[in-house]
Amino acid sequence: MAGSGFGTVFRITTWGESHGKALGVVVDGCPAGIPLSEEDITPYMNRRRPNGGVMSTQRNEEDKVEILSGVFDGKTTGTPISMLIRNKDERSRDYGNIAESYRPGHADYGFDAKYGFRDYRGGGRSSGRETAGRVAAGAIAQKLLRMLGIECRAVLDRVGDVPAEDSAAAEDLVRQCREEQDSIGSVVRCTVSGMPAGVGDPVFEKLDADLAKAMFSIGAVKGLDIGDGHRAASARGSENNDSFYIKEGKVAARTNHAGGILGGLSDGENIEMTVYFKPTPSIAKPQKSVNKAGEEIDLVIHGRHDPVIGARAAVVVECMTAVVLVDALLRNMMSRAEEVVSFYRRRM
Amino acid sequence: MAGSGFGTVFRITTWGESHGKALGVVVDGCPAGIPLSEEDITPYMNRRRPNGGVMSTQRNEEDKVEILSGVFDGKTTGTPISMLIRNKDERSRDYGNIAESYRPGHADYGFDAKYGFRDYRGGGRSSGRETAGRVAAGAIAQKLLRMLGIECRAVLDRVGDVPAEDSAAAEDLVRQCREEQDSIGSVVRCTVSGMPAGVGDPVFEKLDADLAKAMFSIGAVKGLDIGDGHRAASARGSENNDSFYIKEGKVAARTNHAGGILGGLSDGENIEMTVYFKPTPSIAKPQKSVNKAGEEIDLVIHGRHDPVIGARAAVVVECMTAVVLVDALLRNMMSRAEEVVSFYRRRM
Amino acid sequence: MAGSGFGTVFRITTWGESHGKALGVVVDGCPAGIPLSEEDITPYMNRRRPNGGVMSTQRNEEDKVEILSGVFDGKTTGTPISMLIRNKDERSRDYGNIAESYRPGHADYGFDAKYGFRDYRGGGRSSGRETAGRVAAGAIAQKLLRMLGIECRAVLDRVGDVPAEDSAAAEDLVRQCREEQDSIGSVVRCTVSGMPAGVGDPVFEKLDADLAKAMFSIGAVKGLDIGDGHRAASARGSENNDSFYIKEGKVAARTNHAGGILGGLSDGENIEMTVYFKPTPSIAKPQKSVNKAGEEIDLVIHGRHDPVIGARAAVVVECMTAVVLVDALLRNMMSRAEEVVSFYRRRM
Amino acid sequence: MAGSGFGTVFRITTWGESHGKALGVVVDGCPAGIPLSEEDITPYMNRRRPNGGVMSTQRNEEDKVEILSGVFDGKTTGTPISMLIRNKDERSRDYGNIAESYRPGHADYGFDAKYGFRDYRGGGRSSGRETAGRVAAGAIAQKLLRMLGIECRAVLDRVGDVPAEDSAAAEDLVRQCREEQDSIGSVVRCTVSGMPAGVGDPVFEKLDADLAKAMFSIGAVKGLDIGDGHRAASARGSENNDSFYIKEGKVAARTNHAGGILGGLSDGENIEMTVYFKPTPSIAKPQKSVNKAGEEIDLVIHGRHDPVIGARAAVVVECMTAVVLVDALLRNMMSRAEEVVSFYRRRM
Repeated sequence: MAGSGFGTVFRITTWGESHGKALGVVVDGCPAGIPLSEEDITPYMNRRRPNGGVMSTQRNEEDKVEILSGVFDGKTTGTPISMLIRNKDERSRDYGNIAESYRPGHADYGFDAKYGFRDYRGGGRSSGRETAGRVAAGAIAQKLLRMLGIECRAVLDRVGDVPAEDSAAAEDLVRQCREEQDSIGSVVRCTVSGMPAGVGDPVFEKLDADLAKAMFSIGAVKGLDIGDGHRAASARGSENNDSFYIKEGKVAARTNHAGGILGGLSDGENIEMTVYFKPTPSIAKPQKSVNKAGEEIDLVIHGRHDPVIGARAAVVVECMTAVVLVDALLRNMMSRAEEVVSFYRRRM
Repeated sequence: MAGSGFGTVFRITTWGESHGKALGVVVDGCPAGIPLSEEDITPYMNRRRPNGGVMSTQRNEEDKVEILSGVFDGKTTGTPISMLIRNKDERSRDYGNIAESYRPGHADYGFDAKYGFRDYRGGGRSSGRETAGRVAAGAIAQKLLRMLGIECRAVLDRVGDVPAEDSAAAEDLVRQCREEQDSIGSVVRCTVSGMPAGVGDPVFEKLDADLAKAMFSIGAVKGLDIGDGHRAASARGSENNDSFYIKEGKVAARTNHAGGILGGLSDGENIEMTVYFKPTPSIAKPQKSVNKAGEEIDLVIHGRHDPVIGARAAVVVECMTAVVLVDALLRNMMSRAEEVVSFYRRRM
Repeated sequence: MAGSGFGTVFRITTWGESHGKALGVVVDGCPAGIPLSEEDITPYMNRRRPNGGVMSTQRNEEDKVEILSGVFDGKTTGTPISMLIRNKDERSRDYGNIAESYRPGHADYGFDAKYGFRDYRGGGRSSGRETAGRVAAGAIAQKLLRMLGIECRAVLDRVGDVPAEDSAAAEDLVRQCREEQDSIGSVVRCTVSGMPAGVGDPVFEKLDADLAKAMFSIGAVKGLDIGDGHRAASARGSENNDSFYIKEGKVAARTNHAGGILGGLSDGENIEMTVYFKPTPSIAKPQKSVNKAGEEIDLVIHGRHDPVIGARAAVVVECMTAVVLVDALLRNMMSRAEEVVSFYRRRM
Repeated sequence: MAGSGFGTVFRITTWGESHGKALGVVVDGCPAGIPLSEEDITPYMNRRRPNGGVMSTQRNEEDKVEILSGVFDGKTTGTPISMLIRNKDERSRDYGNIAESYRPGHADYGFDAKYGFRDYRGGGRSSGRETAGRVAAGAIAQKLLRMLGIECRAVLDRVGDVPAEDSAAAEDLVRQCREEQDSIGSVVRCTVSGMPAGVGDPVFEKLDADLAKAMFSIGAVKGLDIGDGHRAASARGSENNDSFYIKEGKVAARTNHAGGILGGLSDGENIEMTVYFKPTPSIAKPQKSVNKAGEEIDLVIHGRHDPVIGARAAVVVECMTAVVLVDALLRNMMSRAEEVVSFYRRRM
């Protein structure tokens, strides 16, 4: 069943495997008239690419994006924007021994249970490389957000329990994990400012519900907080409620425990999300597991892997957030009959 | 824009406001042949109803469900099942003073920003009463899950920081909050056992992504953990990975940090979710706020409110989980060509 | 699999069987601020009701619509509008003999093949009564169209080969068919004026594609023409092309062979559709058929049936057209980035 | 708003413009385990390609398809199949003079009305070249249909009023139209045999409704008949009803006026569709029109165009039909609870 599309009116469809010929995305429903070229995409791709640092894999992919459609005279036309990224540095030989084995912490067993077999090379469709397409799509969403005065930004917040701002300590922790043939969990924070109030929907299409789906659709995400998140479960109502007041003639809140969303609708404050990533499941340390034949085995995973996921995944969080926001902002334009009427009065 | 439907092939659409004539749900895509009557729904509705205890509102709704369609000779027919719940004990007079005011922690301001006005009586569409329809739909999903040998159960886990199993202490805490005209946060845990492996999808329709959307679509949810959840961000890979082994001839895991889902697919272990609710925003204590005219005001909220949300929301968590699982299980039936072929060979 | 919903952003979900307790519809995504009461719905329901004339069944249903949600202070609120119609005059005893038999021209056999059994009373979900919900929903769509200056109207065009405007001859033909225990085919024409240009989408969501789906979703429709329709297949390009010219400062076409839609987008001319209905399959004349046990039988159909479908179905065509147009008009508001930007500039 | 995707569980998304870098399609939801290579696609692409004959354009595109994902070890994996077709023989210079002009019978004016500007080269997204992606996707659908014993085939049926089987006369007519700088309408017939009964849905997702949407989503289609189609409007019920009988132990019908679909569900007989195409709107004969500046102009269209659409469009009809059927067949697998239960009993 189709499961590689995301969004309703601004819809992205990603495709591609880690060690296939290419990966990519189709962005359908992008409004016409947004200036766009590959140069707009590259900075986002670069943030996702391995940077040679201690926190990232040694696989070296250029991740050059080619825009194949949907842009004319330097502007989006309103038709689907297809973007292509060729794989270059795939080394499938690293994966021969997992063809028949189920790596702990991975979807290998689930794939076989679902489909009967799988493209095991580099995790196939389950690889983090799938997110390349999401980032390319998110770069376009970010352009529209900026035209609307909305800033959306995600950063690595913690490596294990070490704050990312203490970058020397964080790198030391990662280095230590590497030496121990191990990996470490991480936290990404995402902040959106400039968001208009009233965007989202009151029931199933709550803005936070759509964000939550987007976040948990990113591999290795195991927890999510909106605003105070899980800490709100310990709070009193009188602490947790954000009092409204009037600031420069507009409704504002004195605190932001809610993280910018109330009852599924933006309230005009910053949207604040905290996204929790598990440690990279691919570790060099030998592990106990089983194979397809139903035998227990000792498994050693080769290949090149990030020792911590949040470092490179921050831009994925940011881009998926941007995609959700654009979808919600567009869907919100039809909420009042009087605005529908005045739109068409202008058109005719 | 339409936002009151949930699910793809097993799809529910809820409707109704807190103080309108009625609420309800249409369940579309339910397989034919499930024995069903109102008696199957009632126990779930009763778990959601105020029980007169310290943890629940004093509003007394019978929440009697009438099945209007989709059932014939005591079995579902495959056509939409429409269920209706008449409102009885609405007391709209309690809400006159919030018609023009924005309650902190509520969607009032967002509604006005989005739609220009709102049905303010009892929170209108944003009321927790909307979940009555979800529970009725979930009761049907639960019937199918049980036919499949799957058990799905959610319970109140904590009130503030007090474990719910220490029920005297939890009730004391709630009583104290009431006395202080305040409310308290809470935690619900949901466990699913008997789940087959390989259900879900590897990219955007990950099983955890769909569950996350379902959970954050419930009002007042601010955080979610799958398995170890936010704690996984502090762990090492060697700790967090669940080793596979062979148990009675089948693949199993020695631990369940993942909470039963890897890479978006069920792995056959129990699905474990922890859902974090903020404290009820409606508190009797006077609060600072603003009104529609843009003036700062002192606000006192009347009406009858739960002092803690998780007590009555546990069944909502359970029912939304059941809806997600049924949708995913049905969508999973078409994953292998050979099974499609043998299905139609049997049919013809 | 869910199949009783229609539309993307303006979405209707119908439910109910011919001889169940009730029928209804949920309209989700209706913009806020449209004045609405049951009185707006009644005239449409009356056009669909049997009128006691020669062309309609003798079943007498009041088809009184109750609005249960989504309206406050006489205006739509933007939340789902649920409408309920109780069945009154069901006479299930008429259908006992078809419980196990497959009526020619009906879906009985298909239902059993799909679901294993069926609610046979009055055709169950396949009955024309299902369209009561569509008409109620369409009445709301029509209100919004009129606010936009768009008029949408469908009328019976032909009974068999007799033009409906020659109403005496048409009634004579129907009377003759009745006497012969037979039924007759019919044609409905639908015209939309005041439509702005550029509404629709260039590929799969073409305006005519969505209209075609809507039309063929009405029972007994077997053919559809847009503009010249099937006659265009015999024409030359130089005849069929509609020349543009400038009329009162605006682009207009000298002819309208295209029926107001080019390449999936409205061109500003009237939308013209011709919808072809087969004769009512329920005829009193004895027929050869088979039963569930696989035996050949002689079948006599009792019950009360329209001898011609188009007479009462015209308003269904009109209402489904209105639903499609509103959905397309709302979806069209986000096609240009500059308009998105100016929308939110006004909002903030 | 996203409009380039089609299908629910078997979903295709096309992208690309006539004179852009490339065109393509992503097929999402294809079951795993179907043997697939580019060689399976090529024969379909060749049927769509200009063949140098009198009925087709002189543009010469190789239309070589590259499969970029979703296939491993020669079989589909269940993940999205992305296919790419590079444009080679685009001659954009032919289109300079229509950049600011609105061609009669084309979507040019609609595009400008909707998006504010357009990629005018070769019709951009509205070009018949968009269907290359549909054909590539349909070739995959056809593979699955054949595994199920279902044959789906569309052929040119008429050129103007000349039956296509009289191919000399048909070619003469086309030649004459060319000489007169004109074009001619056409008819395509599609037949599906081996279809199991009970596939489809009784209300909005009727099998014929989905087919109708698919057909009218093909450019230049103006009319559609299912079975007897528009002729059924002239018939009596006693003529039009197809009597059931028992043939080799199975339910069968003595006639097939219905075209294999009753009440939205297949009845096991052949599905018969007749699709009516208007004449190619691009004709060499000078025409009256208007330009973007609102001036009336004399327009001469250059470029290379088919003089009749149905010849090359037959395979598009066939492929879109195959896509609809696969989607419907997959969706149908979950209609009975007992079959869901036995599916998972086999799985566990």
